[in-house]
Amino acid sequence: MKIKKILWISFVFVLLSFIAAASGVSQESDELLRQARVVFQPLPSVMPSPKDNPSTPAKVTLGKMLFYERRLSASGGISCQTCHPMSTYAADCIPKSIGHLGKINPRNAPTVLNAGFQFSQHWRGDRPSLEDQADVSLLSPFAYANVSYDEAQNRIKSIPGYWELFQKAFPGEKEPITHDNIARAISAFERTLFSSSRFDQFLASGEKVLTDKEKKGLNVFLDTGCAACHNGALVGGMTFQKFGVVTPYWKATGSQEIDQGRFDVTKREDDRYIFKVPSLRNVAMTAPYFHDGSVNRLDRAVKIIAEVQMGKMLSEENISSIVSFLVSLTGNLPEEALTLPVLPPSQ
Amino acid sequence: MKIKKILWISFVFVLLSFIAAASGVSQESDELLRQARVVFQPLPSVMPSPKDNPSTPAKVTLGKMLFYERRLSASGGISCQTCHPMSTYAADCIPKSIGHLGKINPRNAPTVLNAGFQFSQHWRGDRPSLEDQADVSLLSPFAYANVSYDEAQNRIKSIPGYWELFQKAFPGEKEPITHDNIARAISAFERTLFSSSRFDQFLASGEKVLTDKEKKGLNVFLDTGCAACHNGALVGGMTFQKFGVVTPYWKATGSQEIDQGRFDVTKREDDRYIFKVPSLRNVAMTAPYFHDGSVNRLDRAVKIIAEVQMGKMLSEENISSIVSFLVSLTGNLPEEALTLPVLPPSQ
Repeated sequence: MKIKKILWISFVFVLLSFIAAASGVSQESDELLRQARVVFQPLPSVMPSPKDNPSTPAKVTLGKMLFYERRLSASGGISCQTCHPMSTYAADCIPKSIGHLGKINPRNAPTVLNAGFQFSQHWRGDRPSLEDQADVSLLSPFAYANVSYDEAQNRIKSIPGYWELFQKAFPGEKEPITHDNIARAISAFERTLFSSSRFDQFLASGEKVLTDKEKKGLNVFLDTGCAACHNGALVGGMTFQKFGVVTPYWKATGSQEIDQGRFDVTKREDDRYIFKVPSLRNVAMTAPYFHDGSVNRLDRAVKIIAEVQMGKMLSEENISSIVSFLVSLTGNLPEEALTLPVLPPSQ
Repeated sequence: MKIKKILWISFVFVLLSFIAAASGVSQESDELLRQARVVFQPLPSVMPSPKDNPSTPAKVTLGKMLFYERRLSASGGISCQTCHPMSTYAADCIPKSIGHLGKINPRNAPTVLNAGFQFSQHWRGDRPSLEDQADVSLLSPFAYANVSYDEAQNRIKSIPGYWELFQKAFPGEKEPITHDNIARAISAFERTLFSSSRFDQFLASGEKVLTDKEKKGLNVFLDTGCAACHNGALVGGMTFQKFGVVTPYWKATGSQEIDQGRFDVTKREDDRYIFKVPSLRNVAMTAPYFHDGSVNRLDRAVKIIAEVQMGKMLSEENISSIVSFLVSLTGNLPEEALTLPVLPPSQ
C-alpha cells in the first residue's frame, strides 16, 4: 500500500514538473516573440515607390531588361547584374566588384534584394534612392563608365527594340529614352526584389518555424545588444553608425586600407568611419562581409562586430547561435529574380 | 448572245490563268522546299553526348550552376555567362569578349546555343568538343585565369554546397570534384541549349510559316551559292573554309588586325585565313559578325561575305531578302536558358 502511494505521489510530482517546465518553455518562447516584435517587423509585402516613379508592369518589364543590358555601358561588358548576380542573392561573392574593364570598385557590393526598403543606398549613404544609385552608376568610372548621359542614352536609342518599350513604360513622353527614365525603370524592377524568410513567419504568427538553436541565437542577438543597430523590418539598413566604436575596425578585420566612410562624402569630422548599418537579411548568402569585404566568414564577422562595436567577446557557442539565427533571415529568391528577360537585338 | 459568249470565254480564260498561276506558285514553292530539304535538315531534338559524358538530370543541374559560377575564376568575376549571356542569345553583343580583369579576348564569342551540334568549337576549331572548350577556359588567361587545375578545383571544393551535387552528378566517384567533371557538367547543361525556329517547321512539313520575302530570301541564298558552306542542320558550323577566297577579308570588313586563323593552330600554310564556317542559326540576334566582330550589321555582313567568298555583288534587294530569310532562323530561347540557378553560399 505504502509503495503504491509513493509511486502515485511520484507520478503526480513528475507530471506537475513536466507541465510546469513545458509552460515555462512556452512562457520563455512567448517572451522572446514579444521582445522580437518590439524590435523587428515582418517585411512589408510592397516596396514603396517615390511619387515621381510609380511602378507599372510596363516599367518593371523594361527595367528588368535594362538591369541585364550591357550595351548601356561604355565597354559593352557591364550591367547591373555584374555586381548583383541573382544566382548568388544579388551580391557578387567577392570583396570588391570588378567593374569597367577590370577596374576594382572601392567597396563591397551590397545585395539589391530588399534594397528599396533602406533609408539610403550604398555603404556611405551617398545614394539617397534606388533611382539615384542607378543613375549615377551610368557615369561612374567603376561601373558603366559612360562619359556623359547623352552617351548612355544614345547606346539605348541605337537599339530599335527599345523605342516601343520606353513609350509603353513612360506613356505621353515625347522622348522617353532619358537617363532619368533608364534609372526609373531599373528601380521599378528592383522594387520587385524582396524576399521574406522564416523569420517573418515567426514574427507574424509565432509559428514554430524557428529551431531551438535559432531561437537561442535570436535571444543572444537581443541580449548582446546587436539590435541596437540591426532592427526594424530589414534587421538594419536604416541608420548610420561608426564602424569601430570601441576599437578601430581595421585592427579586427585586417582591412588593407582605412576607409574614412561617410567623412569622404560630407567632410564632417563626425562622419569619420561612419557607414550605413547593413541589413542582415540574406546575410548568410552574401559573404564576404563589411564595407570592404575583408571578412569571409559570417561567424568571424559576428565575433568582430561584437568586439569592435560593444567591446564584447562572444563565446564560440553564442557566435554559433547568432549565426543560426541569421540563417533564419535567408529568404527565397523571388521568381522575378530567377528568370531572365530576352533583350532586343542590336540592329 | 455574242457578247455573252465572249464574256463566258473571258471568264473561263481568267479562271484557267488563275489556276495555272496558282499551281505555278505552288510548284515554285514545292521546288523551293525540295531544294531546301536537299541542303538543310531540321534541328534534331536531342544533342548527342560523347560516350564518356552521358547526360543525366543531376549533371545538367550541376552544370547549369557551374555555368553561372564566378567563384570558379581567379578574379571571382568571370563565369561562362560572361561571354555567353542568355538574354542576348548566349552571345555578348561586343566584338571581343571582356575576360579576366578586363582582358580583351582574341576573337568574337560565338553563341553556345546549338553549339554542341557543331563538328568543332571556336573560330579556329581548336576546341574539339564542348568539354574541351570548358576545360581549357578554366586556365585561359583571357577567361577564368586559374594558374592550375588544382586551383580551379579547390575553388569549388571550398564551397560546401557543391560536394553533394558532384556526388549526385558523378555517382561512385571517390573525388568527383575534378576539372574534367566540371567541364563535363557544364557541357551537359550546354547540350540542353538548342532552339529550333520557323525554318524547321518549314523544312519538316512545308508549313506556310515563311513569308514570301523569307522564301524569296531562301531562294536567293541558294541561288547565290551561300549554301555551299552554310548547309546542314546548323546552316553552317560543320566545316572550315578560307575567309576571303576572292579578296582578302580585311579589305572588306575593315578589320584592325589580320588574324591568320587556323594557321596559328596548325602552322600549316593551307590553314592560313581558315576559320570555322559559323552556324547561321540565331544570326539576326548575335551581332556583331565574323571572327573579330568587325561588322555590326547583318546586311553588311551578307554583302561582304558574298563579295569576298564568291566575288558576287548582291543587289540591295537581294541582300534584304537574304536577311529576311536569316531572321527565320531565329529560334525561341529554351526555358532552360531563361531561368537562373540558385548557387550555394561561399561558407
